[in-house]
Amino acid sequence: MDNITRPTLLLNETICKHNIERMATKARRNGIRFRPHFKTHQSGPVGNWFRDYGVEAITVSSVSMAQYFAQHGWQDITVAFPVNWREIDTINDLAGLIKLGLLVESLETVAFLKDRLTHPVSIWVEIDAGYHRSGISWDQTPAAQAICDAVRESDHLHLAGFLTHSGNSYGQDVETTYHETVTRMTTLRDQIDPVLLISIGDTPTCSIMDDLSEVDEIRPGNFVFYDVMQVYIGSCTLDDIAVAVACPVVAKHEAHNQLIVYGGGVHLSKDSIIDPDGNTSFGLVARLSEDGWGEVLPDVYVKSLSQEHGIIHMDAATMQTIQRGDLLAILPVHSCMTADLLKHYRTLTGEMLTMAPIPAGK
Amino acid sequence: MDNITRPTLLLNETICKHNIERMATKARRNGIRFRPHFKTHQSGPVGNWFRDYGVEAITVSSVSMAQYFAQHGWQDITVAFPVNWREIDTINDLAGLIKLGLLVESLETVAFLKDRLTHPVSIWVEIDAGYHRSGISWDQTPAAQAICDAVRESDHLHLAGFLTHSGNSYGQDVETTYHETVTRMTTLRDQIDPVLLISIGDTPTCSIMDDLSEVDEIRPGNFVFYDVMQVYIGSCTLDDIAVAVACPVVAKHEAHNQLIVYGGGVHLSKDSIIDPDGNTSFGLVARLSEDGWGEVLPDVYVKSLSQEHGIIHMDAATMQTIQRGDLLAILPVHSCMTADLLKHYRTLTGEMLTMAPIPAGK
Repeated sequence: MDNITRPTLLLNETICKHNIERMATKARRNGIRFRPHFKTHQSGPVGNWFRDYGVEAITVSSVSMAQYFAQHGWQDITVAFPVNWREIDTINDLAGLIKLGLLVESLETVAFLKDRLTHPVSIWVEIDAGYHRSGISWDQTPAAQAICDAVRESDHLHLAGFLTHSGNSYGQDVETTYHETVTRMTTLRDQIDPVLLISIGDTPTCSIMDDLSEVDEIRPGNFVFYDVMQVYIGSCTLDDIAVAVACPVVAKHEAHNQLIVYGGGVHLSKDSIIDPDGNTSFGLVARLSEDGWGEVLPDVYVKSLSQEHGIIHMDAATMQTIQRGDLLAILPVHSCMTADLLKHYRTLTGEMLTMAPIPAGK
Repeated sequence: MDNITRPTLLLNETICKHNIERMATKARRNGIRFRPHFKTHQSGPVGNWFRDYGVEAITVSSVSMAQYFAQHGWQDITVAFPVNWREIDTINDLAGLIKLGLLVESLETVAFLKDRLTHPVSIWVEIDAGYHRSGISWDQTPAAQAICDAVRESDHLHLAGFLTHSGNSYGQDVETTYHETVTRMTTLRDQIDPVLLISIGDTPTCSIMDDLSEVDEIRPGNFVFYDVMQVYIGSCTLDDIAVAVACPVVAKHEAHNQLIVYGGGVHLSKDSIIDPDGNTSFGLVARLSEDGWGEVLPDVYVKSLSQEHGIIHMDAATMQTIQRGDLLAILPVHSCMTADLLKHYRTLTGEMLTMAPIPAGK
């Protein structure tokens, strides 16, 4: 670690591969497809690790991410985001190269695709099963039926089934949310066509539920790294978190119980969480060694972030054991956002792994 | 705008240059140095616009940003962030090339620099004048005196004065905060050495106060673009905001008064603000034309963000006038964070302006 000078995203390859293996095994045991979401890591090299666990189909959240992973050899990609009409040229290019899945939530978008697509694609109808972000409401059977009918009238559109993201599992009981989601999705599906597939996708559900056999496909993403938010939800333990940001200590202010690191909102993101003690936390803190990071320091947390400053709440006794110029590890609240900001991984053996570049027009 | 396909950071060059000119004029009228903070735009080309208004000295928030702007011809740069010991080699390289200013808040860092610096630098002692983020407390005169004495004992360290960032101006009355800050800084300075300089740096203070003559230098950054947060603080009007993110409309959900754009937390950042109606807002929304963006739409705001989704609260009547595939402009809550995420600017004439690249170890 001696040559680390700036905030650096560390990746524990062993933990990460264990997270992948556990989820792949669970999907296999349930007899369902594991189509991991690659928006969390956004990395060709990390994506390649999934192949050893039998993964052949993936999920992404943008057309440019689909392009990137197609260039890394992935042949079966679902873009789990409502079709962006303005990217139709790239969508056509991709549909000519790989098995491409798209998400629709309106007759207008089906008509647009019918008119503009030049190659076949798989179509998932996005269902709002209670999260209320996007999609046709699960209880609007006629609206879903009309979209399915329109899809089936088009030569290039192959209806795959119904897809949902139960983001509401982040705010309420995961088991209850899962059963409600599955009941709503299967009821809708059975009313329209029992051969259609059901795809769900959030990390809390896929981590906490053992029996996922009622759905056909899972698309979790965050599980590859996990993070502090997932620990508090109960999806994982602190030992399952595969990433941490190595941050140089730059200042100590004993009078305020504050230690300042180089590592702010442009490194960790401004996502925060209320911890079990009621504090707003932007991350947990651990010591670093040559082998990686250790146990999180008790009663220590990132209390606020400026652009480059991380302000860590720390008692004076702990602060005395840490010097300016030391590195500390910050376990992120939301690893997807942290990875997106830092754009490079450093494994514990010092290897640098690349991520998708930022296009002009991200 | 027709060739915009993905979330794209638009920059209105006319507004931006007007913002620069107004602040440069205010500094000149007050007879003080204008050392703008370049952390907001992080762009060589945008930085060059400042030269037309007489700016020769700048502020940055990291050593890598100092490197970048030194490569773009800037010869007088203050790194307004506590010295990161781990970057001493780069600091020495820079100190050999340009007039470099550094920030210290401890005897330990002064001793470190005395031991390791190979070229002369200017030293600012960081003072906490009430914000409680970093720095020596304004009322700890002996501690500040000891640091000044230590600095003056070293050949390579040239004591410039006292520097503070009144981040507390974001949460309370700006005029009161300014007067309190100036009184505290001048009292401390006069106790130690009246020839030392005082540098302050927040956008609300520098925008709202007319008389800044009691300080020697101002370092505002955000004013170059402003944003929704600054409008609510009173630093500017909506017409002074120089950046907006062009986002494709991808879905409409009339039942929930929600319109979905491609443009999420990885584009806008998760910084939010409580608007005057009590809503948590991640941005305001305007229509786009070939000339730029228009008035913000009344009662419309970005109510939440996922990684790629922007969820806009919008009444059904307004939603009827907007179609999937249209572009909307989102005025960001915090333009510094949005620019850092998008890494490219597109001027209204279609020119692409670059920003500092993300190093491995950001």
